[in-house]
Amino acid sequence: MTTLEAIKYKRGELQVLDQLKLPHEFAYDNVSTCEEAFDCIKSMRVRGAPAIAIVAALALAVELEHKKDGTKQKADTIKYINSKLDYLMLSRPTAVDLSNAIKLLKKKVADTAAASLTPDQTLACADVRQSYIDGAEKILEDDLTANLAIGRYGAEYLRRQQMPIITPVKDADSLKYYTTSPPGTQGAPDRTYRKLSVLTHCNTGSLATSGHGTALGIIRSLHKMNYLDTAYCTETRPYNQGSRLTAFELIFEKIPSTLITDSMAGALFSRMKEEKNISAVIVGADRVARNGDTANKIGTYGLAVLAKYHGIKFIVAAPTTSIDLYTESGASIKIEDRAQTELTQITGAVVDKNGKVDVNTTARVAIADQRINVWNPSFDVTPHELIDAIITEKGEVVRSSKGTFNFRSLMPQRWREQVDGSDESQATTNGSQGLATPLSDESTQFPMESI
Amino acid sequence: MTTLEAIKYKRGELQVLDQLKLPHEFAYDNVSTCEEAFDCIKSMRVRGAPAIAIVAALALAVELEHKKDGTKQKADTIKYINSKLDYLMLSRPTAVDLSNAIKLLKKKVADTAAASLTPDQTLACADVRQSYIDGAEKILEDDLTANLAIGRYGAEYLRRQQMPIITPVKDADSLKYYTTSPPGTQGAPDRTYRKLSVLTHCNTGSLATSGHGTALGIIRSLHKMNYLDTAYCTETRPYNQGSRLTAFELIFEKIPSTLITDSMAGALFSRMKEEKNISAVIVGADRVARNGDTANKIGTYGLAVLAKYHGIKFIVAAPTTSIDLYTESGASIKIEDRAQTELTQITGAVVDKNGKVDVNTTARVAIADQRINVWNPSFDVTPHELIDAIITEKGEVVRSSKGTFNFRSLMPQRWREQVDGSDESQATTNGSQGLATPLSDESTQFPMESI
Repeated sequence: MTTLEAIKYKRGELQVLDQLKLPHEFAYDNVSTCEEAFDCIKSMRVRGAPAIAIVAALALAVELEHKKDGTKQKADTIKYINSKLDYLMLSRPTAVDLSNAIKLLKKKVADTAAASLTPDQTLACADVRQSYIDGAEKILEDDLTANLAIGRYGAEYLRRQQMPIITPVKDADSLKYYTTSPPGTQGAPDRTYRKLSVLTHCNTGSLATSGHGTALGIIRSLHKMNYLDTAYCTETRPYNQGSRLTAFELIFEKIPSTLITDSMAGALFSRMKEEKNISAVIVGADRVARNGDTANKIGTYGLAVLAKYHGIKFIVAAPTTSIDLYTESGASIKIEDRAQTELTQITGAVVDKNGKVDVNTTARVAIADQRINVWNPSFDVTPHELIDAIITEKGEVVRSSKGTFNFRSLMPQRWREQVDGSDESQATTNGSQGLATPLSDESTQFPMESI
Repeated sequence: MTTLEAIKYKRGELQVLDQLKLPHEFAYDNVSTCEEAFDCIKSMRVRGAPAIAIVAALALAVELEHKKDGTKQKADTIKYINSKLDYLMLSRPTAVDLSNAIKLLKKKVADTAAASLTPDQTLACADVRQSYIDGAEKILEDDLTANLAIGRYGAEYLRRQQMPIITPVKDADSLKYYTTSPPGTQGAPDRTYRKLSVLTHCNTGSLATSGHGTALGIIRSLHKMNYLDTAYCTETRPYNQGSRLTAFELIFEKIPSTLITDSMAGALFSRMKEEKNISAVIVGADRVARNGDTANKIGTYGLAVLAKYHGIKFIVAAPTTSIDLYTESGASIKIEDRAQTELTQITGAVVDKNGKVDVNTTARVAIADQRINVWNPSFDVTPHELIDAIITEKGEVVRSSKGTFNFRSLMPQRWREQVDGSDESQATTNGSQGLATPLSDESTQFPMESI
């Protein structure tokens, strides 16, 4: 199966999908310098926090592989790397994961230089370069590994919620059912289960990450495991990440899927829950607070209320780096209000009179009275009591019978450092600003970003 | 206060607002013939079922006022009227209220002709013409009267839910509070109340009716009575009736208002309910079943669930003609699925590079992957248990402590004829098709339509 890759990398070569042209055109940019990476990030041709960090890190790795730094002294190689990283940071200054990646890489390079005692400066420079390249490649690899793990854990979690069909289906329609041994058993007689459908919101797929994705990663895994009936995706107003990007990914991967407006979720659950076995709403997370409250793309909270009302599971897919132990609850997460024109205007490829889409011509059109006052918060916070499980790369954390989430056993080291250690200065500094993700061993992944 | 008029009429003269140009341009068409009315309706320059019926009826009234029929014999006048009405019916063949208006007018004219015994044919023709003109004008007048009554009943109902402020507000901010005698009292000491905010969905205002509107009519009345803090309106995807039409009406009337995407309602209730005293969601109805289940624009049901979850009243504003006593419950209401391109493409006025809207140039743009499968139901059904009150021109019907709606006492005659009479042939014929609105004395109003 061809997997959608927003980032194509092999040592010395980096190609990045131009997401501004999606879904109408599918074109890669060659990125061989930090300047090209900077432009790619700044112009939003690549988006999603993990993807941004990876592109920045790998662009410099490509330069170093081709020895574009031209340095002859170890100290100069380090200087070159640090200055390029500082430059790349300016491409998207608020991207916390980009900042984390840069800190991680600077530290790795400094450590290597300190440990490298060879008097041969050519060799020393090569060591530093190699250390950087390895570090950058590990960021890519770790992100992909984490995504795949989230996908697998999420799919298995959802599978365990399904009850086998009591009356065996004759002439079982393979589009509607799958037959396998019950979850958690070895060699038990096969049972037949209905395939399940899910709804997702925004874009949390390959396009925002190294590949696979978080919430969309679970959907990919469900499909690969043959458990999936239909993936529904919301349009995700006002930026339409769902209809532009998620829809594109689902089609690319040939996953059976259907687009709805955000306002149709209620009718979908009410009318189609039984018919399509709609079992879960799966979303990503911009930040998960210590108690499980989750900030995510606007509209997430409304879907959580609707899921609860219809007895449908509500699942958050997030790498552990998105869990912010310094933030006690969602109450202290600050929500950014965005521009009014995001609601009142929209850009798209022009459709001609014959209904043909001209991918080379875009237009911006007014779709509302331009004088109306607009409320446009970019995120909302879903309280933990509406969330059934948070799926991370280390496994799922399920809401307890007391209604709480326990992240201590998932991340004992970070919990000790960040909660028990009660480092007050950290808590104050990072309280409600950005993601607080110290570079412990348990956090080399990068959280999703707002757009 | 200038009131927005979609239809301007005085005897012999009819002007109709071109809604296709809204919200960017505000222009009236002169409609002096049935042919002009037909074109106006067919091209959707006028929309909303009551407005369509009124425009059709009045266009012929204008013709007759100017004696364009040119008939000299009573029988010919009737023939002319009937043939023009049959022609107008074809402008929007599924519009049940247009059909009802035509039936009503044909009957009135026939009755007049039968009663008119004068041998003077000039006089007889004049009698028939006058009878038609009076009948057409009464449709306009009745619609406006009903809308105003709904607005008043709705505003008073919402006002009665408000508790006075116990600790008097010093330097009361007139933008946030009003002071008046408690509801239902005469001469009792004044109390201070917080102004209230409401959310509405789709367009149910002047543009769809003779004026004032149903759900938006309640908002107009709240504003006029000085009880309104803010009217929130949803965008109402996929057709954006909220952002194009309701937003326009709210601005036109200078009603304090804010636009949100459909997906923001949950966050709005969660974050702003207390601050803005959000007291109700008010929607219109395409059809209310006998048990109170209500079919309305897609997205209504999700708002009802969110309102319930947040302890916010959910109010349906509908003339009694929208109450379909033949349909026992929402289960038998058939929901139309609409075209995929309604979600994946959108038309608007072009915005140039300087951000200026060019009202004379429109473009259609693709806003989603064009290959994605789409689910696009035009309506959803809100079960009666989520509705707190249904406001009609005869007063409000509140959900009883048993959770039921009782329309019998509101419309005793129709109930006797349509429910107790158990006219099975009617029930079968009208069961799930269109609105069943026999022309009894209690039903001369016309329900809202789908777009």
